[in-house]
Amino acid sequence: MRVPKRYGSSMERVWTAALVVIGDEILSGRTQDKNIAQIATWLNLQGIRLGEVRVVADGMEAIGTAVTTLAAQHDYLFTTGGIGPTHDDITVDAIAAALGRAVVIHPRARTILEEHYRKRGGELTETRLRMARVPEGAGLIENFMSGAPGIRVENIFILAGVPHIAALMLEALSGTLEGGRPLVSRTIGCFVPESEVADLLAAAEKAHDGVQVGSYPFFRDGKVGANFVVRGVDAAQVDACLAAIAQGLAALGYEGVDGGV
Amino acid sequence: MRVPKRYGSSMERVWTAALVVIGDEILSGRTQDKNIAQIATWLNLQGIRLGEVRVVADGMEAIGTAVTTLAAQHDYLFTTGGIGPTHDDITVDAIAAALGRAVVIHPRARTILEEHYRKRGGELTETRLRMARVPEGAGLIENFMSGAPGIRVENIFILAGVPHIAALMLEALSGTLEGGRPLVSRTIGCFVPESEVADLLAAAEKAHDGVQVGSYPFFRDGKVGANFVVRGVDAAQVDACLAAIAQGLAALGYEGVDGGV
Repeated sequence: MRVPKRYGSSMERVWTAALVVIGDEILSGRTQDKNIAQIATWLNLQGIRLGEVRVVADGMEAIGTAVTTLAAQHDYLFTTGGIGPTHDDITVDAIAAALGRAVVIHPRARTILEEHYRKRGGELTETRLRMARVPEGAGLIENFMSGAPGIRVENIFILAGVPHIAALMLEALSGTLEGGRPLVSRTIGCFVPESEVADLLAAAEKAHDGVQVGSYPFFRDGKVGANFVVRGVDAAQVDACLAAIAQGLAALGYEGVDGGV
Repeated sequence: MRVPKRYGSSMERVWTAALVVIGDEILSGRTQDKNIAQIATWLNLQGIRLGEVRVVADGMEAIGTAVTTLAAQHDYLFTTGGIGPTHDDITVDAIAAALGRAVVIHPRARTILEEHYRKRGGELTETRLRMARVPEGAGLIENFMSGAPGIRVENIFILAGVPHIAALMLEALSGTLEGGRPLVSRTIGCFVPESEVADLLAAAEKAHDGVQVGSYPFFRDGKVGANFVVRGVDAAQVDACLAAIAQGLAALGYEGVDGGV
């Protein structure tokens, strides 16, 4: 859909991405996901907006449907999880099936794994060779930590589920994807009930082109307050909007804290 | 779809839920989501499986589509976020529109808010009254912390985005939703490369009815290892599967640690 141009001017192309987090361990509550925030932050720096995330079970159909649906709606589609050597690692099979591609052993991935295990005095067993499997025609996302590389096929980027390995794969991709202007985000916090400043926030958003204002309440030290986050690609508009909110808070007798409280 | 009966016997009804996390603050990477793990864990205790999660932007269409799609596929649909008093809180409007219901002021919610602000020496302003708006015909999910209640309409449960307020709403719902047997989960950890035990894990899963085995690798203190998680509704089968994995590890010369490492 080359979706909501909510941050830029109407003439500005906005690049978007979606993320499919694959893993029963997230859906069972056992593991606290860290990849959503990590990938969202990285995408901002590439000038790409994270438009939607889906967390799906380790199932062929669930993975295939989510990946193909979102890959068609966004410029880029990322997945995390399910690329290890065990029986529950079916991400490659699911994506290949959904794309109508065969699963093949990638020669360069095999070489990487062979070297990885040779250095460690191990062998590239048949089970380990599973990590060299890719959808036919795919490229690799190499990284220094783990033997098993990430995979790129069409506009789909298949990353590891372990957050620090996913981070290395993102690092390898940094600066290689076309995007727009990076998103600028500034925060002002205040000990004020958000209901008292709702009109102020709406007016500030409306008065500044291409910015978006979010209000995130908290309850701390027995006092209510909120952080107000202004986002946009035009730093001048973002700054002006933030200044308007600060001024409005002062006019109501509240002190805003730059950077948030 | 009354989905994958992956944990129970084929004759056993499985209840499933989906979750829609509403919030630009999650998609921008600013806020680390905590509701997915919290709701997943709570659902397990109610005998309900979390089948899918979607994180969507604060947009009418994005919310409406995700909610109606998933509510039709699952027994229960939960949302978090977007029910405060500010302009970016559009969850109620989006869900009401998607269901073809009007938005009305719930009389009981108005009373709750009036009392809440009276106690605090404030007033129920028009902005604050926004928090009493519900899709027509909806019920409330009351909680002691916050003035603003959660909302139930059809099979949809609309919760706060602030995790500790969402937790109070879940507490209010505990034991009120029909579910199946709670999911039992047991873990055994081991300093072993998961590629060495992939066959063992697959065989153990296959040999025990209705259980599922997940393998979650880590790298710690310079050593690789993995935690193996066995899940199912039949505790005897789960225990037997865990014992089989422990025995298999021992046969390979590894020591498994009950409860995980």
